[in-house]
Amino acid sequence: MAGAVVWLTGLSGAGKTTLAHAVAKKIARPSEIMDGDEIREFLSEGLGFSKEDRDTNSHRIGFVARLLAKHGVLVFVASIAPYAETRAQLAKHSQEAGHEFVEIYVHAPLETVAARDVKGLYKKALAGTIDHFTGVSDPYEAPEHPALTIHTHVESLDESADRVVHLLRARGLA
Amino acid sequence: MAGAVVWLTGLSGAGKTTLAHAVAKKIARPSEIMDGDEIREFLSEGLGFSKEDRDTNSHRIGFVARLLAKHGVLVFVASIAPYAETRAQLAKHSQEAGHEFVEIYVHAPLETVAARDVKGLYKKALAGTIDHFTGVSDPYEAPEHPALTIHTHVESLDESADRVVHLLRARGLA
Repeated sequence: MAGAVVWLTGLSGAGKTTLAHAVAKKIARPSEIMDGDEIREFLSEGLGFSKEDRDTNSHRIGFVARLLAKHGVLVFVASIAPYAETRAQLAKHSQEAGHEFVEIYVHAPLETVAARDVKGLYKKALAGTIDHFTGVSDPYEAPEHPALTIHTHVESLDESADRVVHLLRARGLA
Repeated sequence: MAGAVVWLTGLSGAGKTTLAHAVAKKIARPSEIMDGDEIREFLSEGLGFSKEDRDTNSHRIGFVARLLAKHGVLVFVASIAPYAETRAQLAKHSQEAGHEFVEIYVHAPLETVAARDVKGLYKKALAGTIDHFTGVSDPYEAPEHPALTIHTHVESLDESADRVVHLLRARGLA
């Protein structure tokens, strides 16, 4: 099967990484999950959270994801990638490289992700002690035409994962 | 066939990238060539040439190479990686990930690479206008026990490539 880049974009705590793992378990083909936090540690240490640094981070992830997709790997990227223009560039690079780029919007309202506060960061961000926190003190440009929008505050993880699998099957990617 | 990381280490201008391309053409399986200069542009913009930055660069390349090898890709890395300890760490990480790390020393004497001066950098480095230039104003720790040493100043490219292919076949990697 062809390689592809499936980019799960959304706020911190929306459930991107969890969803990627649930989908990967449901499909028969091998895949790779690139988690934004993990990637920052290995590829982007030293980068901050300015627009420029976020874009550099997204482009680095994109570069690696394309390398994998080129070799037939289905790559799930779970990374905020807050800027629409940057995601459009990443999609273009994938298309130029000859593989699909599937943008999935993993959505939950700010109130929900702030209440979940998995990493304890929203509390700090809302208290004003973290600058450049996406959705609170830094912009998040939601996708206008994603291939799929997942509402993690109203769907179960299993339902959400099934919807992604259905999309991937329809596109011949799973 | 199993994925693996084949790291071609040696001075700038020794012929690492050229050799990687020649080997890739001679073998039947698909492979990926990660070129040090290209990688610096995409993954390590902003890093300099201090020991710390060089190590960070080598570890980033290693991280990506291992991801590819994990998915069955034979990865040729053509990157100086001047520090023996760093290369030993990279070898260890690959072994821990369950694939082979093959260290190949692409050697030519400093006089030869300086005379070739493909990128015009040795002239500047020897004139003292480039700091931290490997082999001139920065250390290069040659491998003590590489899987293979290629002497590009006395062997033809075809001979060198055949020797690498022979090694890869012996290890079940080509």
